[in-house]
Amino acid sequence: MNDARTWAAGAAGHQFTDGHLLEAALTHRSASGPHNERLEFLGDAVLGVVIAEALFLARPDAPEGDLSRLRASLVRKQTLAEIALELGIGPYIQLGPGELKTGGHRRESILADATEALIGAVYLDAGFSAARDMVLRLYATRLQALPSPDELKDPKTRLQEWLQGQGRALPEYVVLEVTGEAHRQEFTVACRLPDTGHESIAAGRSRRKAEQAAATSMLEDLRD
Amino acid sequence: MNDARTWAAGAAGHQFTDGHLLEAALTHRSASGPHNERLEFLGDAVLGVVIAEALFLARPDAPEGDLSRLRASLVRKQTLAEIALELGIGPYIQLGPGELKTGGHRRESILADATEALIGAVYLDAGFSAARDMVLRLYATRLQALPSPDELKDPKTRLQEWLQGQGRALPEYVVLEVTGEAHRQEFTVACRLPDTGHESIAAGRSRRKAEQAAATSMLEDLRD
Repeated sequence: MNDARTWAAGAAGHQFTDGHLLEAALTHRSASGPHNERLEFLGDAVLGVVIAEALFLARPDAPEGDLSRLRASLVRKQTLAEIALELGIGPYIQLGPGELKTGGHRRESILADATEALIGAVYLDAGFSAARDMVLRLYATRLQALPSPDELKDPKTRLQEWLQGQGRALPEYVVLEVTGEAHRQEFTVACRLPDTGHESIAAGRSRRKAEQAAATSMLEDLRD
Repeated sequence: MNDARTWAAGAAGHQFTDGHLLEAALTHRSASGPHNERLEFLGDAVLGVVIAEALFLARPDAPEGDLSRLRASLVRKQTLAEIALELGIGPYIQLGPGELKTGGHRRESILADATEALIGAVYLDAGFSAARDMVLRLYATRLQALPSPDELKDPKTRLQEWLQGQGRALPEYVVLEVTGEAHRQEFTVACRLPDTGHESIAAGRSRRKAEQAAATSMLEDLRD
């Protein structure tokens, strides 16, 4: 654990008073001893409020929907796993023998969960302000280069807004076919532009997914 | 606004330094001027972390799943609307003429949103610790009388755990029928206990809802 404390003081910038908290944060549930699921629950909430505040202040004119989408992109597993790699937390995570053998140190979800647990552990060790400082350090480059809110919108929304901007009629979505048994259906959906009759067709495991895929395809057609 | 400041100092226990924050927190988007949607976004996150910490400390042995379910029950709209009524926030909310006419002051979602926005406003006005103190005051009785985690589990989980506790075989769910068009399907599902052949049947707008309804019906049968 001394190694981990030195790493935390350096890479994460926090000197733990209570080493047991750090130890628990770095212990996956597959290993023996107190593991990090409860700390992850707490850290996820701390992360949420720190990012919410940072976005609130960084984008004083953004509507709530933009803030929500930006936050979702910053706190999702994939982003957290990238931050975990930058932190170099992987080698310090304690895993059970099964996870160890199958490369758990590199698994995205294990890395992301340990990073959230670390945030929760810092919160308990030294309070909100210390946890906030760490989160803002970990997210510094990402908070300085926020994506435009439009990039984060789903394809149906982007298509609708693009058409509205052109003063054109809104697309229509029609389910063409539903195949497969109830627990494994596939939906085929057409996205139609009523003013030109242009149509794109796509399939998906839910009606929503098929519609989004058809909208993506329509956006690509319109870009060409 | 002076009235609202006096109310906030009394009922919510926070003396606002920046009255504009309180004003925005109490302004629904239907009214003119800066409204409370961004503050609600922030307050929701602050509420989440305060309740997460309170549950983490109150239930030192609870697994993460229990903490998540307990939190969900405490931060959902319905609970927030109850707290809003206890706070008496309703009369201080600024609404547009349409909402005013249709009784928006009593609408659950408007009350809940304003309460979250108030939490966000206190956070910006005086910091995390002040917001935390207020949330803990507002939730004091609910945090002292937490429901048992089992009460919060969904019917399928409760049924499964009850059967496991009796050493019995797990239930099987079978989709009997899917009717209606793709966008308005109704699923009929049977829940069967393989060891006795006992069966309960229920319908719902999704497979998941139908299964939960069939499990509820099975739990009632077993209780009799």
